[in-house]
Amino acid sequence: MLYKGNIIHTIDKDTFEVFEKGYLMVQDGTIKEVGYDLHNKYPNEIVKDFEDHLIIPSFTDLHFHAVQYGNLGIGLDEELLDWLDMYTFKEEEKFSDLAYAKRIFDAAITHVIQSGTTRIVFFSSIHEAAAKLLVELCQGYGLTAFVGKVNMDRNASEGLQENTQQSIDITKRLLDIGDEFVKTIVTPRFVPSCTEDLMASLGELAKDDYPVQTHISENENEIEWVKSLHPDAQDYLDVYEQAGLIGKRTILAHCVFCTPDEKERIKRSGAYVAHCPTANFNLTSGIMDAKDYINRGIPIGFGTDVGAGQTPSIRQVMVHAIQMSKVNRMLDHHKEVISFSEAFYMATKGGGTYFGNCGNFEEGASADFLIIQPDKLAKVRNITVEEQLQRFIYSGNNNMIRYIYNRGNLLNSY
Amino acid sequence: MLYKGNIIHTIDKDTFEVFEKGYLMVQDGTIKEVGYDLHNKYPNEIVKDFEDHLIIPSFTDLHFHAVQYGNLGIGLDEELLDWLDMYTFKEEEKFSDLAYAKRIFDAAITHVIQSGTTRIVFFSSIHEAAAKLLVELCQGYGLTAFVGKVNMDRNASEGLQENTQQSIDITKRLLDIGDEFVKTIVTPRFVPSCTEDLMASLGELAKDDYPVQTHISENENEIEWVKSLHPDAQDYLDVYEQAGLIGKRTILAHCVFCTPDEKERIKRSGAYVAHCPTANFNLTSGIMDAKDYINRGIPIGFGTDVGAGQTPSIRQVMVHAIQMSKVNRMLDHHKEVISFSEAFYMATKGGGTYFGNCGNFEEGASADFLIIQPDKLAKVRNITVEEQLQRFIYSGNNNMIRYIYNRGNLLNSY
Repeated sequence: MLYKGNIIHTIDKDTFEVFEKGYLMVQDGTIKEVGYDLHNKYPNEIVKDFEDHLIIPSFTDLHFHAVQYGNLGIGLDEELLDWLDMYTFKEEEKFSDLAYAKRIFDAAITHVIQSGTTRIVFFSSIHEAAAKLLVELCQGYGLTAFVGKVNMDRNASEGLQENTQQSIDITKRLLDIGDEFVKTIVTPRFVPSCTEDLMASLGELAKDDYPVQTHISENENEIEWVKSLHPDAQDYLDVYEQAGLIGKRTILAHCVFCTPDEKERIKRSGAYVAHCPTANFNLTSGIMDAKDYINRGIPIGFGTDVGAGQTPSIRQVMVHAIQMSKVNRMLDHHKEVISFSEAFYMATKGGGTYFGNCGNFEEGASADFLIIQPDKLAKVRNITVEEQLQRFIYSGNNNMIRYIYNRGNLLNSY
Repeated sequence: MLYKGNIIHTIDKDTFEVFEKGYLMVQDGTIKEVGYDLHNKYPNEIVKDFEDHLIIPSFTDLHFHAVQYGNLGIGLDEELLDWLDMYTFKEEEKFSDLAYAKRIFDAAITHVIQSGTTRIVFFSSIHEAAAKLLVELCQGYGLTAFVGKVNMDRNASEGLQENTQQSIDITKRLLDIGDEFVKTIVTPRFVPSCTEDLMASLGELAKDDYPVQTHISENENEIEWVKSLHPDAQDYLDVYEQAGLIGKRTILAHCVFCTPDEKERIKRSGAYVAHCPTANFNLTSGIMDAKDYINRGIPIGFGTDVGAGQTPSIRQVMVHAIQMSKVNRMLDHHKEVISFSEAFYMATKGGGTYFGNCGNFEEGASADFLIIQPDKLAKVRNITVEEQLQRFIYSGNNNMIRYIYNRGNLLNSY
């Protein structure tokens, strides 16, 4: 199938490639070619002509608490540790009820897809059945996803406290459910929630390149807490390293206060950083210097971090990330801001590579793309295709996302 | 007419008042009463029952460049002074063409109303005919508004440079157009754009309590520029004070870097501050400490500052203001954040008082209100009326704004 429209994607973090009235050739769920005049090269293909609409890669979300979707946009006058007690844990306890879980997950996934995200890494709760259900729903909706049953055997609320062995057993039972596109991921919540025994056992699983996600260095009080729990550890990252949890299939959410030494070790490990600026603003956590991670060549993408983030829209998170980098520049004029192309790269390809060849339109990439209706205003004041993309990202809304394709399949249309 | 629904508004900056399934009694475009069981007290009134919808005051926008709407969401990789040269001035020059002006203004006002704003203070361009047109359009659409023909007789682009006398003459001619609800406002762009002669002449107009708006202390380079232009002035504010431009009918946009002494003089003058956090983030201008202005008791409301702000939505600006105050707290733990109630107060009543008795539901207030469809999620996870308002502000969208009333008149419905 050939898709025609104003195609724009990043070929690296600094470079957009634009094909006005260009073609995207899709075969067996992957991109075969992008360019001009492909209807001549492939004369037998059906052409779907989207005219003046933009064709862009779909978004990648590396960090989303599916079980916190019910808290969306509420209680954000609180800071992290209070907020966990007052909102998060109470809500997560409800996911022992599978009917409730289904209603929230359905609403969350629908909102994720409507926001243009087709690849996502979910935290679920501690509950086995809920995690299984979330895997099945991701399959049903056609997402590409990782789903993590959360492990927490200390410092949890009563209803969420696990027994260590049970936590390990459930995790193991879930290892091989799912399929090629929806898999489970080992998910120790964060150091304060997991004993060393638990983390070490989960680290054994990670040895076989099993994917892992967790939180690190989101908030200064949290870091102090980790220090008091592990006085002998070199730093926060060291606790995970000792447990064998850090490798090229690890996603580390936040990384706001990582030291230069931690950053170098993250780089050497090949782990991914999930930058969640929206949540960092909301929970008064800290000003992440994401540009430093980009400059160091550390793999980095975005997380909405729903419910600490108030939106499932990676589009909005991109803007928050640029704004947060501008805060860093205001505080230190030697720092550079995250450019629009860097932010778009992170939102698509940067996080996308965690899922394989995903996030732009190079040959062999997964055919994950969005059809974006141009702003009506573009008819009054002419702007370029790149400016139309800027306007969609900065000032647009989900109504402008007319069609959503993942692996060549149409997920949702309005 | 009685309007029934889940009513919520602020009675002061710290206090929400909620009437679940309450009534709003509106007569001759003003609020007569808000409370329970008013259908018994006013048995002859028609009841419009909005069931589980929220009824909230409409928003106030104290700072919006109508002529920059065509730049919405583009070019935001630049900082203030470069951005003015590359985007702003070029676009404003086009407003000598009245047909172009009409297309942009129509689109801008429609977007403003759809965003739930019914009271607004516009910057137009230098052009007399465009400013007149904007007044007429505001009347036609039913907004409550001030429209400023911009004055600039130095340091402008060629197409926007005015002759001093001509600038004054046009301003005077526009003084008395409009009506009770849509008026003009004296609008010296900012110090670098206006000679002392021009500012002094405009200050003469301000003596008669004529409304004035301008920019101040948005960016450190701008402040240096003002210092070099006026080496004998005590500070930036002093230049305006000398010209007689600062009084209780003055709106000062930005005020990011005002000194404690300037803040005290602003307070004594009774002038309003238009806080524009979105624009301040976008143009890497600075971290405004709006909470300090609140604590000092200085009248303060929000401006979207379109086009430096990427959205006409005061709802989104509220969130940016809370987030910016959290940045201040991250940098200095002694600082307090702006609470949700304070932000909502600023968005409605704080800026609303500039227009008279506007911005909440006290007796005699202008009947300016929005009917908000509750989030579908609220049916899955029960939340309070105040939490529903939080969700609308943080995570909602314009589609949820079902009806928009200004002075008792329905402006727009979907």
